[in-house]
Amino acid sequence: MPSTLASHVEENRQRTLEELKAFLRIPSISAQPEHDADVREAAEWLRSALERAGLEKARLIEGEGHPLVAAEWLRAPGKPTVLFYGHYDVQPPDPLDEWLSAPFEPELRGENLYARGAADDKGPTFLWVKAIEALMATTGELPVNVRVLCEGEEETNGAHIGNWLEKHAAEIPSDAIVVCDTEMFARDWPSITVGLRGIVYVEIEVRGARNDLHSGQYGGVAPNAVMAAAEIVTALKDRDGRIRVNHFFDDVEAPSEEELAQWAALPFNETEYLENEVGSIALTGEPGYSVLERVWARPTLEVHGIRGGYVGEGSKTVIPAKATVKLSCRLVPGQIAGDIVRRLEEALKLATPAGVVTSLTVLGSAPASLVDPSHPYLQLALQTMSGHFPNPASFIRCGGAIPIVGKFQSALRAPCILFGFGLPDDNLHAPNEKFYMPNFWRGIHVIADYLRRLADRPS
Amino acid sequence: MPSTLASHVEENRQRTLEELKAFLRIPSISAQPEHDADVREAAEWLRSALERAGLEKARLIEGEGHPLVAAEWLRAPGKPTVLFYGHYDVQPPDPLDEWLSAPFEPELRGENLYARGAADDKGPTFLWVKAIEALMATTGELPVNVRVLCEGEEETNGAHIGNWLEKHAAEIPSDAIVVCDTEMFARDWPSITVGLRGIVYVEIEVRGARNDLHSGQYGGVAPNAVMAAAEIVTALKDRDGRIRVNHFFDDVEAPSEEELAQWAALPFNETEYLENEVGSIALTGEPGYSVLERVWARPTLEVHGIRGGYVGEGSKTVIPAKATVKLSCRLVPGQIAGDIVRRLEEALKLATPAGVVTSLTVLGSAPASLVDPSHPYLQLALQTMSGHFPNPASFIRCGGAIPIVGKFQSALRAPCILFGFGLPDDNLHAPNEKFYMPNFWRGIHVIADYLRRLADRPS
Repeated sequence: MPSTLASHVEENRQRTLEELKAFLRIPSISAQPEHDADVREAAEWLRSALERAGLEKARLIEGEGHPLVAAEWLRAPGKPTVLFYGHYDVQPPDPLDEWLSAPFEPELRGENLYARGAADDKGPTFLWVKAIEALMATTGELPVNVRVLCEGEEETNGAHIGNWLEKHAAEIPSDAIVVCDTEMFARDWPSITVGLRGIVYVEIEVRGARNDLHSGQYGGVAPNAVMAAAEIVTALKDRDGRIRVNHFFDDVEAPSEEELAQWAALPFNETEYLENEVGSIALTGEPGYSVLERVWARPTLEVHGIRGGYVGEGSKTVIPAKATVKLSCRLVPGQIAGDIVRRLEEALKLATPAGVVTSLTVLGSAPASLVDPSHPYLQLALQTMSGHFPNPASFIRCGGAIPIVGKFQSALRAPCILFGFGLPDDNLHAPNEKFYMPNFWRGIHVIADYLRRLADRPS
Repeated sequence: MPSTLASHVEENRQRTLEELKAFLRIPSISAQPEHDADVREAAEWLRSALERAGLEKARLIEGEGHPLVAAEWLRAPGKPTVLFYGHYDVQPPDPLDEWLSAPFEPELRGENLYARGAADDKGPTFLWVKAIEALMATTGELPVNVRVLCEGEEETNGAHIGNWLEKHAAEIPSDAIVVCDTEMFARDWPSITVGLRGIVYVEIEVRGARNDLHSGQYGGVAPNAVMAAAEIVTALKDRDGRIRVNHFFDDVEAPSEEELAQWAALPFNETEYLENEVGSIALTGEPGYSVLERVWARPTLEVHGIRGGYVGEGSKTVIPAKATVKLSCRLVPGQIAGDIVRRLEEALKLATPAGVVTSLTVLGSAPASLVDPSHPYLQLALQTMSGHFPNPASFIRCGGAIPIVGKFQSALRAPCILFGFGLPDDNLHAPNEKFYMPNFWRGIHVIADYLRRLADRPS
């Protein structure tokens, strides 16, 4: 007699944990070529796990960079098709000496499982694999059609999945894409992310004199490239945090009153946020907007560094001949990366001081993404998630970019549902990355429940 | 029968050149501890040369750092006493691959002798040694009393000579100090430097958040330390080149109308200067002042570099938590280093944007120096120099600092006479340093002539 899904999950708890640990033991660091074999091993491990879960045609898709991992189960005619996305690569673990346990030797301490990749993204990926496995094991089938498309170069902005999607989207028609690679707003406060900021990352080069010059001999007449760089960035954004690039805000789409009201209801404490997360003497930013508006719904302009001149120990009296500024703008829905680049170029011309010449190079860009929260699949996801946590689920946004979300939505013309199972203190990209395991077990039930409920919806 | 000084110099030309080459072969790089023995060898070589020239009590003065080299000849009662200064240490020769001949294998090409230290300062030092030697050899005595005090850590701002002077100035009473460590304004345009700018070098630290933060997650609320550093430096100096530090110019002493008129008469071509020396699209700086006023008689504020955030290859989306600014002000006569530091500290407080805390550390300072050109010894120096070059000599200034000049003047209460025998294209501190040898031979005659003329002056 088939057991219920709940008892199946409970009975296999230890095995599931050991499997997750095995996945986490593979140092699939996509940024380091010496780990190429490990990245492939993780791909193969995931392919095998998908097969064991009961999916069909589990396979690696080879191409530029690391392989994609795909699988499918399409035996629910008339039912919706859900595409699951995850990534099996991880960030480098440095600095190693700040880890309390080795990054690739998973260790359960209290309710948290510590390992590189635990939260980003092997844990959240494996929970939907286990949801699929539990449904197959207990019912012999899935309530909806399922596809899987995972990648191994999310942490390196690899082009493989994007390029593959451009050519092969028609081969994987889907009604919704489920992504588990985001966070909950706070512990016990489940959330679904419906907005991501985009980004335009540029490098500005400033050239003054032919060579670095002696500040005694030439101080007072030679242009100073680092000073010019400072002039430029302070012209682009004033000391009150207002971006001074013409037409920069023209296409910004503001969140609805309803969305703003939802944000205002979130359990957010500005003082705790300042102390626990930022650690400066005060928060800064554009006047007239709340913290959540500033990080979720307003574009930014940040300088990441200014290279040039002398920054070593002690003193050197050089007038820098060249400076390079790394700068990015976070984009919000409505803003087009190409337009912002053109506006930055125009602003740079206006901001360039006498005596120097400047140029701008785009190092990367990604569009902002917005999912319509009124879509029935999103509403269903919110209801489903609410049933498994102490508090009801909320729609939130995220200040960062997940470029694949925009690509999925435009290639497949279907909504992305970003279930957040991570927590803000999971130490993503940092030492002591961990996953809060109660969310792992809840996540299995959320996903299984969601697929069952989706079956009642028309495709 | 004693030969004339001119024929003595001529007859000993080849030997003098070989001796200078021997001096230049010693890699007395004071900045590199592995060359400590070489620095000492150069000190000993110079001591020996002073002895051979006929000076008495030629000796090394030991102390912190590299030794001083001293000597004297005080057998001209009632005549003035002249103290000669020079330094026997040299800059490191890097980058080596840009030298056309090895830096410590002196090579005469055309009229120039190429070697590290040829112009800074072994050549100019050795020429006054040879003037003394020629006077002794041809007359058996010197026309005035002579002292020598040379150092071996000029290139490393060593404290030995300054500290020694503070304690022992009374042991070396002198009426004038002759320094040969500056340049002529242009080839065939002899000059005596009567003004040097001082300097205050500071480091400003800017701290924002506790750690570098992700610009997606926190962009819009977290203070950016590099941006704050840019705000600060652009508040201290505006984009038109005006320094905006309160009371910064209060104590600036302007050059006299007469001095300005002399500068206006110098063979200076701004277009050639821009093209040959600076190499930018335009000169910059404070409006309302000529190029020579800006580099010789106006204080400056220059940023040497801003450290913080990410400046490596590619893109990293970090909000820098900390930035360090290296910044210096060149000072002109009238300005006091301590006052300028206090005014910078006050200006920094006013310029610090919200969200960050700043602090300022002084890394070094030196006062500006001014010699009164109307002093009879200066006037005599000008006349003497004029007689040995195609054009009459001028009083000029120098934008850089030679801290020992101020120390000599205040410790000995006597004027420094800075005879310039170097040329602007001598590549000081750079590859292919050279000395224009016609100035070496002229220099011997200028110094001998000057000492003879000084003998007619009262002590």
